[in-house]
This record gives sequence, structure tokens and C-alpha cells, in this order.
Amino acid sequence: MSALPYDTHHLRELAGELIVNVRELAARGWTPATSSNFSQRLDDRHAAITISGRDKGRLNEDDIMVVDLDGRAVGSDHRPSAETLLHTRLYRRLPAVGCVLHTHSRTQTVASRLYGGAGQVRLAGYELLKAFSGTATHEVELLVPVLPNSQDMHTLAAQVDALLDAGPMWGYLIDGHGLYAWGRDMAEARRHLDAFDFLLGCELELGRLTTGR
Amino acid sequence: MSALPYDTHHLRELAGELIVNVRELAARGWTPATSSNFSQRLDDRHAAITISGRDKGRLNEDDIMVVDLDGRAVGSDHRPSAETLLHTRLYRRLPAVGCVLHTHSRTQTVASRLYGGAGQVRLAGYELLKAFSGTATHEVELLVPVLPNSQDMHTLAAQVDALLDAGPMWGYLIDGHGLYAWGRDMAEARRHLDAFDFLLGCELELGRLTTGR
Amino acid sequence: MSALPYDTHHLRELAGELIVNVRELAARGWTPATSSNFSQRLDDRHAAITISGRDKGRLNEDDIMVVDLDGRAVGSDHRPSAETLLHTRLYRRLPAVGCVLHTHSRTQTVASRLYGGAGQVRLAGYELLKAFSGTATHEVELLVPVLPNSQDMHTLAAQVDALLDAGPMWGYLIDGHGLYAWGRDMAEARRHLDAFDFLLGCELELGRLTTGR
Amino acid sequence: MSALPYDTHHLRELAGELIVNVRELAARGWTPATSSNFSQRLDDRHAAITISGRDKGRLNEDDIMVVDLDGRAVGSDHRPSAETLLHTRLYRRLPAVGCVLHTHSRTQTVASRLYGGAGQVRLAGYELLKAFSGTATHEVELLVPVLPNSQDMHTLAAQVDALLDAGPMWGYLIDGHGLYAWGRDMAEARRHLDAFDFLLGCELELGRLTTGR
Repeated sequence: MSALPYDTHHLRELAGELIVNVRELAARGWTPATSSNFSQRLDDRHAAITISGRDKGRLNEDDIMVVDLDGRAVGSDHRPSAETLLHTRLYRRLPAVGCVLHTHSRTQTVASRLYGGAGQVRLAGYELLKAFSGTATHEVELLVPVLPNSQDMHTLAAQVDALLDAGPMWGYLIDGHGLYAWGRDMAEARRHLDAFDFLLGCELELGRLTTGR
Repeated sequence: MSALPYDTHHLRELAGELIVNVRELAARGWTPATSSNFSQRLDDRHAAITISGRDKGRLNEDDIMVVDLDGRAVGSDHRPSAETLLHTRLYRRLPAVGCVLHTHSRTQTVASRLYGGAGQVRLAGYELLKAFSGTATHEVELLVPVLPNSQDMHTLAAQVDALLDAGPMWGYLIDGHGLYAWGRDMAEARRHLDAFDFLLGCELELGRLTTGR
Repeated sequence: MSALPYDTHHLRELAGELIVNVRELAARGWTPATSSNFSQRLDDRHAAITISGRDKGRLNEDDIMVVDLDGRAVGSDHRPSAETLLHTRLYRRLPAVGCVLHTHSRTQTVASRLYGGAGQVRLAGYELLKAFSGTATHEVELLVPVLPNSQDMHTLAAQVDALLDAGPMWGYLIDGHGLYAWGRDMAEARRHLDAFDFLLGCELELGRLTTGR
Repeated sequence: MSALPYDTHHLRELAGELIVNVRELAARGWTPATSSNFSQRLDDRHAAITISGRDKGRLNEDDIMVVDLDGRAVGSDHRPSAETLLHTRLYRRLPAVGCVLHTHSRTQTVASRLYGGAGQVRLAGYELLKAFSGTATHEVELLVPVLPNSQDMHTLAAQVDALLDAGPMWGYLIDGHGLYAWGRDMAEARRHLDAFDFLLGCELELGRLTTGR
């Protein structure tokens, strides 16, 4: 008889969805060297998240653990990744968020280095800006924040909180590190992640073509 | 008994062909963040087209709808993408066109931004220009139009009409957006799409190598 | 009873090998828009070659024909590609050559444009130069010829003959077009093709990194 | 009855792991033109290593041989690659090393050329530096040595020995050639290899974006 304080059937569904999607992202090279982590909200007190250090291209059910919204392990003695806190703070603060994806594509890492000094990347003039929920036209600009990297997750989490105080957003970069993106569910989070990576890639490519001119 | 005003068997054939080809294009990263749309002519009054917002890498029969050549849903209550009009206007105007492919590869998007000011991309000196139907030698130049982006499809459609008045063409770019390419059937439309993307990619690469010289 | 002047069993073996290898090259994007062609020597008077205009990513037995060493169809009424002559001249002149691969990767096409004026690409300082048969050290330089493009295959073939008069070689570029590479058999021809593409790609990348310095 | 001086069952396990991992690396294009070699420690006197010149994308059990730690064939008459010595010297010197991976990605080859003059690549400011065992923060710098290329493996091995005398390391580049990376086991060696390639790729990309500025 299970005394676990969450719905194990629902956990299995979410884990299956995580496995399929994370393997696809790994196949693109967005999770180099066992980096990156991925989560889905399980209920209003729990989330399912990938265990630190696992090979994302071979992810299976044993690589996923349950944490509470303070980032502590629930129902297992796995050690949550330090970055778990950046996931759970979003679930705690934003009740509509159901999925958080953190990746390290080369585009994301290079963009974070290139725009780290400016503290943000300005995206404008792209049809694909419409991929972000709440955007109905390409005639907008999107500012993607770039946070300084830190091994202190409380520092990073406080900076994210300050950004969320200033207005809605769907993701941010950390300098020299990678991207966090989220959404209501896996489909929306992946759409946002794809759009961020595509648009950052376009900006870098335009930069290469105009550098030195 | 079906009262649908089109051949459902033929629809199923076209849908199958769309699914195979669109999944291949999605696997290349040419349909980021559920963008892009794809259609085939069903008969002289109808076309089959992908439904807006579906993940093109997982496309199946339920993601394809039938529209008339004014872009209105036929036999379903799915909402056609706003861009449906750009497909159906081509079918209405050009009876020989059987397939229209609209994609958003990074190459296409970046080229559209880079050449948007000039209003066209000039392609010359490539053997692959022979991939465009009606071209028998590499000793030609091809001008690929770049239209300003707009959320008003009637404005875009009128600009495409003006271009077609000036002479035959197999595709165009929209600034900050992507590429439209077409052909008699799926095989020809894909050949044209591939050739556009390949040649635009070569131009960008040559640009990178000569920038700043 | 077969009156065909070649060994049909051996043809089937070679066709199988062509199909596997050409599909792999197509999956890399080296055969855009149905371009490129591929052949293997069948015997001292015949070669098996891909039929013009077929999708190389879906190649099957019906897409392969037999020609004599003057490039004329044997045992079928398929129209050989104009470029067939560039294959058969190599088989006629070089008895040890068993396989000829002609591809259009972006790297090959861009390198051919960039170095077309110089008429050759100089490759030196790479360990992978040892991949070319007859090379035992990286301390050599390899000059890859770049021929002007032409729709007249006799002109191109005469230029290749003149190059072969000057010394042994394993491949050449055609400006704005692509690469021809060959070897004793499929394995050696693929090794040469891979090495050419890899080394040309390194040269372009080094060029991007030092342009404008 | 086997008189082989090693555990054939353990050899089969290691060979299976090599096959899966090497094919994945080949699929990324990191083993062009049959280059690259890969090994695992079998016991304190033997290692299993890929046979020279085999296609790494089609690797199977017959492509793997056993050598002693002086690089001589054991239990077969296959000719070990000249570079075998660079593997076995690591196993002899570093008892904790269980796997050595040598690849030739374009990123690795280009970085080795670009930084060959400086003799090292400095990596700093990247979160992914934490992928190297023993590193707990991104606030470090990693110096990746670049050795001059040589066909004399004893010369190269002596240079590697001198580097190891100076301190611990997880890999090095050879100019115009490629990368050696290692670890306790396949998982750690792959994590190090992935991290090296990713970070070198970021450096090249940042170089492209700032060249000529």
C-alpha cells in the first residue's frame, strides 16, 4: 500500500512525457555532458524532476524523482540537483506553470556569453515571436534577461523573482550556462524553448554576417 | 453516407504524403515552435492543409483539414491558419500548382532579414539552379523576392499577385518569417524548397566568409 | 533467359551497396533537390549508375541503370544523366577505379565558389590527409583542383583528363557545383569523399575565424 | 578451452559498450573517413581497442582487438593502430583510467589548428566546466594542451607524460588532428569528451562573432 503523498499514476504519465521529450532534446545536442534538467508539476505541492548527472539521451523512469516545492526529495533518497530550486520556485510562484525546461545548447550558451554584459537579448522583427503565449503579432520586441552565473541558487532565484515582479516572461538565460523556459504544459514549454533557441540562433547568425562590416 | 464535396479516398492519399514529407522537414528543424504550414490541392475547388499550431514533427491525419480556395473550412469546424489564404490564392491563380510548402528554417529566416531591405536575393553561378523547373543551365540568375512581413494576409496576397503578374516564379521569402515554395506536386515542391534553402545557405556561408574583407 | 551482356547477380550486389551508401549521404544533406549521382564499375565494359533526377534519400533498385563506358544505356531505355560521362571516363581511363561518388554538400559548393578563381584548394597540416590512399603522413600538401562549371561534359571530361595526365588524384571540385571523388571500391571512395568534405569544411571554418583579422 | 590471458566474458561486455558508444559518436560525424580510435581497460595488463581503419559507424565485435599495455596484439594477429600506444601509456600510468576516446570532430580539428601556435586553449566562464571530475564550480579555468602533430608516437607519448607530471588532466588536442579524452569508465570519458567538444565549439563560435571587431 502506497503512502506516497502524490498520485503515482499521474507521476508515471508525466515521467513518460518527460522521457520522450528530453530524449528528443538530447538528440539535438542541447544537454551536453549529462547537463540540463527538466521537470513537470505533479500537483500543487510536488513536481517530477530529472535526477542530477543522468545521461539525458538515455533517460528512463529511474532517472526521475519527486520533490516538494522547496526542492526536497519526497518518497526517495535521491539527491536533487542544486538547480531544482529554480524549478520549484517557478511552480510555487506561478500556479499556471506546469513544465520547466532547462537546456544548454551551444546557441544558448554562446548567446548568454555574448549578451551577458548587456544583461539582456533584444528580439524583434521575427514572425516566430508569435510562438510566445500572449503574443498575437510579430510587431513586438521581446527582452530575454541574462543573469550572471552563480553556484548559489538562492541568489539566482531572487534575481528571477525580481524579474517576475517586473512583468510576465517565459524564460531567461544564465551567463555561460544555458536557458530556462517554461509553460502551462510540456507542449507550451517546448514551443517556448524552441522559439527562444531558434530566435537566439538567428541573432547569432545575423551577428556573424554583419560582424566587421 | 458521405456528403462531403470532395474525394475522401484522394484526401487520405494526399494526407499520407503530407505526413511523411512534413515530418522529414520538421526533423531538419525547418518548422520550429509549431510554425509552418503545408498543403496539397485536392481538386479544382479544395485543398488539404495542416491545421494551425500542431507539432509538425508528430503530424498525423487529425492535423490536416480541408479548405475551399477562399480558405474556408469544408467538412470540419477547425479554424484554418490565417496564412491559409496564401496557399489557396496560389491554387486559384495557378491551375498547374498542386502543392505549397511554407517553412521557417534558420537559413530562410536569416536570409529574409539580411536581404529584406534589398527586397530580393540574387542567386547566380550555381549548378543547383537547374533544380527549378524550366531551367536547363546554371548560367542564369534567379531573383528570390523578399516581401515585408504583415499580419494582414490580403496585403501579402496582393503583393504575391503583383509578383506573379511580372513572371513565373517558384517561391518567395517574407522578411523575418520564412519561405513559400510550390510545384506541380509534392516531389516538385520539395525539390524547389530544397534548392531554395540550399542556395540561400550557400549565399549566407559565402557572406560569412567574405564579411569584413 | 537473360541476354544482358553483364552479370545481373553482381549488378544486384552493387545496387544494394549503392542504395545503402547513397541514402546515408542523402541523410547528411549532400544530395539536395535530387542532385548528385553515384556509380560502381560492373565489369570492364559496364557501370551501374543512379538515374538522373531521382530522390537520393529514397533510392531503390529501380533508380539504378547500367551504362557502357561511353555512357550509353544498356538493357534499358532510361536516359542517363549528362554527367554520366564524367563517371565512365574515369572507369575507362583508370582500371583500378571501382566506384565514383558525386555530391553537392554545402561545404563542397561553397568551397568551389570561394576557391574557383584560384583554380585549386590547398590542404596541408591535417592528420586526415592520411585518409587518401598512398599517403602515409600528415606532412604533405594536397591540391584539390576546382574546374570551371560547364554544361558541356566533353569540355569537363577533357579538363579532368589533363589533370590526370599531370599525376594521380582522388577527386576534384567543379565551381558552383560539387565534388567528384573515387576509389578502388565503395569503402575507399567513401573514405576519400568523407576526407575531402571534412578537410574543406575545416578550411572554411578556419577562413571564417580569420576573415577580417 | 581458452588459453587467452584475459576474461573473454568481460571483453564481450566492454566490446558491446564500445560498439554502442562509438556508433553514436560516428553518427555525429566525429570519426570522419574511418579515423579515430577507442579503447577500454580490460584488466591491469590488457585493453580492448578498435582496429585501425574500420568504419566507426558500422563498428562490430570483429573490429575490436586486445592489446597489452605496451600496445602489442594479444590473442590475434591484427595490426594495432600506431596510436594504440597513446591509449596504453595512459592505462599504464593512471590506474584509475578505464576508458580512452580519441575523436576528430571538425570543432576539435579546427580548434587544434587555431590554438596550435599558442600550445593551449583556455576555457573559462562556463558552467559546463563542472562536467570535468573534480570541478565543483564554473569559477575555474581549464587549459587544454595542444601538442604538435607527429607520426612518432613515442614523441607524442613523452609529451603527454610531461603534461601529466605537471598535474591532473582529462584530455588534450593534437594540432591538425583531434582530441584525446579519458575517464574512469565509458560514462565519465564520454562526459569529458562531450564537455571538451561543446566548450571548444562555444569558443570557436564566440571567435566567429568577435573576429574583426
